[in-house]
Amino acid sequence: MTDPLIDRRARLLGPNVPTFYDEPVHIVRGEGVWLWDAGGRRYLDAYNNVPHVGHCHPKVVEAIAAQAARLNTHTRYLHETILDYVERLTATLGHDLSQAVMVCTGSEANDVALRMAQAATGKTGLIATDNTYHGNTAAVSALSTRRPPIGGYPPHVRLVPAPDSLAPLGGSAEAQPEAFAANVACAIAELEEAGHGFAGFMLCPFFANEGFPTLAPGFLDPTVEVVRQAGGLILADEVQPGFGRLGTAFWGHEVLGFAPDVVTLGKPMANGHPVGAAVTRPEIMAAFRGAFGYFNTFGGNPVSMAAALATLEVIEEEGLMENARTVGAYALDRLGGLRHPWLAEVRGRGLFFGAELVDETGAPATGFAIRLVEGLRAEGILAGRIGRAMNTLKFRPPMPFSREHADLVLDSVDRVLARTEVPR
Amino acid sequence: MTDPLIDRRARLLGPNVPTFYDEPVHIVRGEGVWLWDAGGRRYLDAYNNVPHVGHCHPKVVEAIAAQAARLNTHTRYLHETILDYVERLTATLGHDLSQAVMVCTGSEANDVALRMAQAATGKTGLIATDNTYHGNTAAVSALSTRRPPIGGYPPHVRLVPAPDSLAPLGGSAEAQPEAFAANVACAIAELEEAGHGFAGFMLCPFFANEGFPTLAPGFLDPTVEVVRQAGGLILADEVQPGFGRLGTAFWGHEVLGFAPDVVTLGKPMANGHPVGAAVTRPEIMAAFRGAFGYFNTFGGNPVSMAAALATLEVIEEEGLMENARTVGAYALDRLGGLRHPWLAEVRGRGLFFGAELVDETGAPATGFAIRLVEGLRAEGILAGRIGRAMNTLKFRPPMPFSREHADLVLDSVDRVLARTEVPR
Repeated sequence: MTDPLIDRRARLLGPNVPTFYDEPVHIVRGEGVWLWDAGGRRYLDAYNNVPHVGHCHPKVVEAIAAQAARLNTHTRYLHETILDYVERLTATLGHDLSQAVMVCTGSEANDVALRMAQAATGKTGLIATDNTYHGNTAAVSALSTRRPPIGGYPPHVRLVPAPDSLAPLGGSAEAQPEAFAANVACAIAELEEAGHGFAGFMLCPFFANEGFPTLAPGFLDPTVEVVRQAGGLILADEVQPGFGRLGTAFWGHEVLGFAPDVVTLGKPMANGHPVGAAVTRPEIMAAFRGAFGYFNTFGGNPVSMAAALATLEVIEEEGLMENARTVGAYALDRLGGLRHPWLAEVRGRGLFFGAELVDETGAPATGFAIRLVEGLRAEGILAGRIGRAMNTLKFRPPMPFSREHADLVLDSVDRVLARTEVPR
Repeated sequence: MTDPLIDRRARLLGPNVPTFYDEPVHIVRGEGVWLWDAGGRRYLDAYNNVPHVGHCHPKVVEAIAAQAARLNTHTRYLHETILDYVERLTATLGHDLSQAVMVCTGSEANDVALRMAQAATGKTGLIATDNTYHGNTAAVSALSTRRPPIGGYPPHVRLVPAPDSLAPLGGSAEAQPEAFAANVACAIAELEEAGHGFAGFMLCPFFANEGFPTLAPGFLDPTVEVVRQAGGLILADEVQPGFGRLGTAFWGHEVLGFAPDVVTLGKPMANGHPVGAAVTRPEIMAAFRGAFGYFNTFGGNPVSMAAALATLEVIEEEGLMENARTVGAYALDRLGGLRHPWLAEVRGRGLFFGAELVDETGAPATGFAIRLVEGLRAEGILAGRIGRAMNTLKFRPPMPFSREHADLVLDSVDRVLARTEVPR
């Protein structure tokens, strides 16, 4: 069956526009953790983190509808909602992260964060990990190894090896924190040697795209020390782990226990409404605001801020962080109880968990992971893959995900694992 | 009177966050061409182009509310509304501009357009005018002279002198098209000489930020010829002139009569909802999609597309382009009838018009322009300033702007001009 939408899509959007699945799903309705396709089939959404408080949460929908009917304008006029929101948001953050630039996407937030580091230090050199993704603008794309920019990678960017659970840097879990920091120190030295100087290191505190390796609290301490000594900034991309998803803390950097200089936010922030932010300390904001005449027309508009405020309120009112902690622990425990020779490691935290698949030789079982995700989809469960070789099953559902939902997912994983043949 | 919001704003958003007016306006409600402040005072909005079909247009609000309640998700699943919208949008464009990348802001659209040019040509060199603004990402900021990037302007960017009504390039209006093109040819030669090669020239077809100089159709013909000969692309930033604002044509490039290779869209596209797009020909899209693994989480989501589709429908249903033509002509005629020694030139097209102010020595009367805008605000009229020296009064109201609204504005301009003392 070829959906006529696929042809129309290729005609109007061009080739290679990414979709999930061999046969993409045509979704028409969402509610809570559920999605429905055009044929009326229901899917349990165990993948999408953007609808953070649940698809079409009525409180967020109502906030958007009410504010859209009342006023939508930019921040060159005064408006209270952006201030109410930034006050509530920054109250969840320590480390004097008390001022925000409101933007429309996580990409824009990271694009701003890189310039905050450059403005605060007067240097240009940037570091990221070697298997990451921080967004789609030209500047942040240069931190990703997925596709080289036309003309090559800019010389002021260095990528350091990402941490890994199964192949830890330095050869062991214990050695990994120092080994990771040593590579950062090398990259800083290279940037200084090349005359760029060192501005900042951008990282996801959950290393989500790197396959969310299991890391002990304190993992980043040696790295933070190296960065501080060199006068650079730590830019924590909290787009994926933030807003309570990890269950035991509202922010990913709290789980690892380090103090970022800038925190960036996106996807789940307003439950799907295009909202992002870069939050930092007043002296860094002053440097940024002094160096760049930054203005974002849609950033911080009253409708976006109403959506973001409602999302934050629902997280608190419905105890979704605590839910992430208990349901996530339950799901991880059930996942850990499954047996399959290619299930190399089960890991995660809160409502971001999964399993890395490797074959009997220890090589990434990417093809097998693809089959599992397709098999889950056939059972009505939406899941994903991530990691350096895209061989790690990823579950990252909307936050109102219950034990019953976890059981549906884990029962299905069990069945699909059992019936999916390993490639020969 | 100091509004306590101003202190709160500085505390939460940092210093130098731009506002309009000596005493910023605290807007709480909007409807059509009207805005209300917190004290209940009504303002006629003659400035804001983002609420293109009028503040809080009920059809757009209803489209947003209905879709937000039904589904909001990303384009890795199939959905019809993005296709319906892109089909409608591209039907308004000629020159085989038939495929779109949906993004969230005009900045993101321009950031994509620059990479489309680089992907299509395999070169990196970019040209823009020397008094422009194409957005706030790091890459597009490098096309703006407002603030130099940390580390200086990138070497692959060249800025050419913008056209000007009062001081035309080449010394006369007749000589200006060739003179403009000659500077572009020089910039291309420099980029090739420096080894970057030439990828594209980004421009606003109305030269809105440059002060919307009066230009005859065909003005860009010699430039387009130069760009084509060099194998580069013309990137038309239609964020300001597009969607019928100029009255006589739906797009700014139609008014000047040239064929762009990429058209970028933003601000007015979804009446304030964060939506942007880069539209191009299939072969350029294929090059872009092949070179970059571009994905935008919020771009093209069903709610954004419902808002954009409703906006496009309202423009047609309410005949807003024709309204822009007739009301714009009426307003420009009335503006042209005003007499003041510092009113150097009255110009514009459709619902984008204004007047350049220069003193008796011919120098830009920026201070006087500031006083006029403040004087208009005191009379309940919101207007702006633009141009190289920010000495051009700018009127760019929501499109349902009637002759009666134009009379209110022009009567006020007349009074304010009469009573505003020229600086000594």
